[in-house]
Amino acid sequence: MTADSTQELTGDDLAFNVFARACPSRGTLEHVTGKWGSLTLGALYDASFRFNELRRRVDGVSEKMLSQTLQALERDGLVHREAQLTNPPRVDYELTPLGRAVAERLLGLIHLVESRMPEVLAARESYDETRGGR
Amino acid sequence: MTADSTQELTGDDLAFNVFARACPSRGTLEHVTGKWGSLTLGALYDASFRFNELRRRVDGVSEKMLSQTLQALERDGLVHREAQLTNPPRVDYELTPLGRAVAERLLGLIHLVESRMPEVLAARESYDETRGGR
Repeated sequence: MTADSTQELTGDDLAFNVFARACPSRGTLEHVTGKWGSLTLGALYDASFRFNELRRRVDGVSEKMLSQTLQALERDGLVHREAQLTNPPRVDYELTPLGRAVAERLLGLIHLVESRMPEVLAARESYDETRGGR
Repeated sequence: MTADSTQELTGDDLAFNVFARACPSRGTLEHVTGKWGSLTLGALYDASFRFNELRRRVDGVSEKMLSQTLQALERDGLVHREAQLTNPPRVDYELTPLGRAVAERLLGLIHLVESRMPEVLAARESYDETRGGR
């Protein structure tokens, strides 16, 4: 490895590779695709929300988990937290342009999964039936 | 709710909704987007692999986790397990057509995340700097 090849790596899209264990992109992919991360980004694609509105949308999330999820997404630059100095203070969460691009791809995946669920459920049934005979 | 509206729900794409806690699509989304599920589907998009080849590709996965991941993806009809009755037996894993469609969307998301990592890392730095002053 020369100084040149390091230079090349940092300037190139190929510098980041989720398949490599130590690559920071793996952590970001996990924030984005994690159980609550994906649903939070998907919900915020429709509109900006206050914490409790968001919590109702992401059915089943605890206050603590939603708070941790939003913090990780904000730190990665995907969600913007807008605090207004009113009394009581009002805090809105919205997607950044980067968060919007990520949520768009994510929703493409979510809609594909939702639309193919009949196939998935049929596969599960056939797997569970034949498994005893293996 | 009438019998008619139930009928409508099961015949419609909108029948499945990952935002609803009890919807089975949520579990499938988790298999697909889980830490090891997403990397396994991404790796299998390139070619079919044997277990140990796949394990080398998905850097950092344990034997147990890869085995559980493949089992969940096979049960959901996303991965096909091809066992050949040779001695020693040879088992290949490959994507089904449904798995290919899912992996395609997933790779779109992965490539977006990888290519935008400089932005993510800059956001993290600025978040960590300003956080003390909040």
